[in-house]
Amino acid sequence: MERNERGVTPQGEDFSAWYNELVVKAQLVDRGPAKGTMVIRPYGYRLWELIQADLDRRIKDTGHENAYFPLLIPESYLRREADHVEGFAPELAVVTHAGGKELEEPLIVRPTSETIIGEMMAKWISSHRDLPLLLNQWANVVRWELRPRMFLRTTEFLWQEGHTAHTDETDAMRETMLALDIYTQVARDIAAIPVLPGEKTPGERFAGAARTFTIEGMMRDGKALQAGTSHYMGTNFAKAFDIRYTSGAGRLELCHTTSWGMSTRMIGGVIMTHGDDKGLVLPPRLAPHQVVIIPIGRGDQGEQTRTAAHELAARLKSATVRCHVDDRAQLSPGFRFNDWELRGVPIRLELGPRDLQSGTAVMAKRLGDEPKQNIPLSSAPTLIPNILEDFQTFLLTRATRFRDTHTTPTDTWPHFTEAVSTGWALALHCGKPTCENDIKTTTAATPRCIPLEAPPETGRCIHCDEPSAYGKRVIFGRAY
Amino acid sequence: MERNERGVTPQGEDFSAWYNELVVKAQLVDRGPAKGTMVIRPYGYRLWELIQADLDRRIKDTGHENAYFPLLIPESYLRREADHVEGFAPELAVVTHAGGKELEEPLIVRPTSETIIGEMMAKWISSHRDLPLLLNQWANVVRWELRPRMFLRTTEFLWQEGHTAHTDETDAMRETMLALDIYTQVARDIAAIPVLPGEKTPGERFAGAARTFTIEGMMRDGKALQAGTSHYMGTNFAKAFDIRYTSGAGRLELCHTTSWGMSTRMIGGVIMTHGDDKGLVLPPRLAPHQVVIIPIGRGDQGEQTRTAAHELAARLKSATVRCHVDDRAQLSPGFRFNDWELRGVPIRLELGPRDLQSGTAVMAKRLGDEPKQNIPLSSAPTLIPNILEDFQTFLLTRATRFRDTHTTPTDTWPHFTEAVSTGWALALHCGKPTCENDIKTTTAATPRCIPLEAPPETGRCIHCDEPSAYGKRVIFGRAY
Ligand SMILES: [Zn+2]
Ligand SMILES: [Zn+2]
Repeated sequence: MERNERGVTPQGEDFSAWYNELVVKAQLVDRGPAKGTMVIRPYGYRLWELIQADLDRRIKDTGHENAYFPLLIPESYLRREADHVEGFAPELAVVTHAGGKELEEPLIVRPTSETIIGEMMAKWISSHRDLPLLLNQWANVVRWELRPRMFLRTTEFLWQEGHTAHTDETDAMRETMLALDIYTQVARDIAAIPVLPGEKTPGERFAGAARTFTIEGMMRDGKALQAGTSHYMGTNFAKAFDIRYTSGAGRLELCHTTSWGMSTRMIGGVIMTHGDDKGLVLPPRLAPHQVVIIPIGRGDQGEQTRTAAHELAARLKSATVRCHVDDRAQLSPGFRFNDWELRGVPIRLELGPRDLQSGTAVMAKRLGDEPKQNIPLSSAPTLIPNILEDFQTFLLTRATRFRDTHTTPTDTWPHFTEAVSTGWALALHCGKPTCENDIKTTTAATPRCIPLEAPPETGRCIHCDEPSAYGKRVIFGRAY
Repeated sequence: MERNERGVTPQGEDFSAWYNELVVKAQLVDRGPAKGTMVIRPYGYRLWELIQADLDRRIKDTGHENAYFPLLIPESYLRREADHVEGFAPELAVVTHAGGKELEEPLIVRPTSETIIGEMMAKWISSHRDLPLLLNQWANVVRWELRPRMFLRTTEFLWQEGHTAHTDETDAMRETMLALDIYTQVARDIAAIPVLPGEKTPGERFAGAARTFTIEGMMRDGKALQAGTSHYMGTNFAKAFDIRYTSGAGRLELCHTTSWGMSTRMIGGVIMTHGDDKGLVLPPRLAPHQVVIIPIGRGDQGEQTRTAAHELAARLKSATVRCHVDDRAQLSPGFRFNDWELRGVPIRLELGPRDLQSGTAVMAKRLGDEPKQNIPLSSAPTLIPNILEDFQTFLLTRATRFRDTHTTPTDTWPHFTEAVSTGWALALHCGKPTCENDIKTTTAATPRCIPLEAPPETGRCIHCDEPSAYGKRVIFGRAY
């Protein structure tokens, strides 16, 4: 009975219901009062902090500096880059009144910061010696969302946005790919999501970009999730904001700029890549609690196991394991087991009076394919870090296998439609936006990316039979 | 000539000009396009990150969890607490249009989050077992500012806001004082600002609070800066948002709540507590670069000192010293010396060809009272951490001495007006808001706080001669 109340709809029955119920029941988020906004609860925010810490370190290690730019952007700034304003206009939130008065010029709550950062770059850059200028900002952004979905599409979300300026295309493209590579690593190493890096087709580019790159992950319903993007802007924003430098030869030149972002959307990716019918499955490197210890027993015995649980927790913490003791005596052991299963804790240690007597704890891993094991209390701090590492590796391997078995090279239209109904299709495409649109209308699938690494291949478009573009197969799939 | 271009107006000539010039020339901030907003540049943002890291650790160590609540708050939420909306109404920025339409209910860009967090607390709390609920959020807030001042009063600023709920007044007051104590420690230990903790008089309370506590620092112009506040809300917000719990005895009770915040304003406090006519003076624990090494020499010799500088930097970094090599060969040594002096780096190491030959570097401390010293390259990594610690201690001692010599117990009105024109007055006061107002109108001084620690004393009000309130002397001063 406790179980049912906390349980979630099985994935196979309704993946969408599974997700929507889980994010709330696992106490990751709650709905905010304004349309499409979310409250990120401590358990969900801790996931974000752990992603942040890893990503921030990599951003700094590659020479970028954090800064902070204003939330409120004059409307006129957005208009300076035509594609940019066209792309974002439908999603903008506008401040028209402030300080008790109507503003002369409305202010936009930033949907992204290319414009305001472009304006400042123009001010800060004068010589080639000021380049490259490598900036990053951790911030909230607002994009009005009509069909919100917690973490995946919310009116407000948290992200980092990198913004850099360079002397030429070569250097800016090197930066664009560096950022994409950082995202690929964070997704794989930390979130255990085997993302595929690739380039977006022109129809899927960021508003104002010359080239857009993406990392795409496959969720357990076969859909794709864009988990991070990196854009080469060419000189589009440099022209709009007059970002120029004097070269070594004394000539005034336009900068080439980039921008790249990863957001709280990643958390949605973690949930949908690893979760199962019992709830979340968290990769150890992202788990707020890597181990939960549950002392069992009543009265004096309960007191003893409780004390032992806290002692063990202290020893695990010294071994840099993130550990939590759930000693809520008012809840049954079974309820507590299910609760942490739902919340995706990689390892559960049960500590009852008899375990304590034999100097062991009962270890249950979150993916209970193996039977429970007894683990000696004395050696737990040396054993557990390795078990966690194995668990992390296993999740990446399992997700890679899932992705690969759900990715199908297709050369016929019926095969294509079948492939994108359960996963991804690898197909040749003509590259025409109208053809992309036709495919989308018929199958709900879009070109996710032109993979960076793929064998050269040419032929006929999967849909219209025109000669193929890109020189390789494109990944098509339905997407979040 | 280089010097003059980078230099700032002396403090004694115009403190305000000194500050405004310095924050821009030291590359801490730049003006944002929307009224009163600021761009925090990497050097300034790094200061914030270092404050954040220390404060966040203390907040977590005391059992609080980070979460994130939406930026946009329905206008009706603010109206639910009468004092709260009255206090904030003149400063609000209002989103009236979003997603291309006029909103049915305008949304406020959060000026602070008591209301939206109160709404969620009501949802999350049901039993006494859910208490205390200890939350913190790192966020941006917007308060429309008519007379902006970088870091000190800006339309948007960054802060953390703690929000907690408790079963009763005792527990909530313990929390209120715990937060104040954390702020006192951060200010003293990290920023070397000897703040005075105390309670605000009723006229200076936070809008909606039952009691407000503050830490007040003295700036080098004798003015006070409120560097952090902690509020006991009583049951005001619990009533407005229906935050209730079932007690052990089964009765439905109102929660007692607190909130507390420290912001980017702290950076302004650091600048005005320690800075001098040459520029910033940064406490080592907050300095982005604790040591800057400047290699000197041209051609081959320049190459040698440059290599040696980077070697030394690597060794200092291993000794956990934050170290930067300024090898901008196109700039003269003198220019670079002045630049880092302006930017407040605690220790400068000059490394010329002759120094290198003798295995030493020339060390200049930012407060150049002592002559430059030679420091052996071999032992630098062991010596410098101690020198930095001494520098940190010295700054706190110097600031404490300054504060104490500019704080005067006063018992006559002429003496009072003289004291508050150059620093703080310790005076008895009747406690009446009208009398506070009269004092403010005449002298520009306000009651900064009733110090927590002060000997008991009663007598007559410094201004109106009525019997004194509070049982001790109150600190009066002009303030930022
Ligand atoms: Zn086609
Ligand atoms: Zn009086």
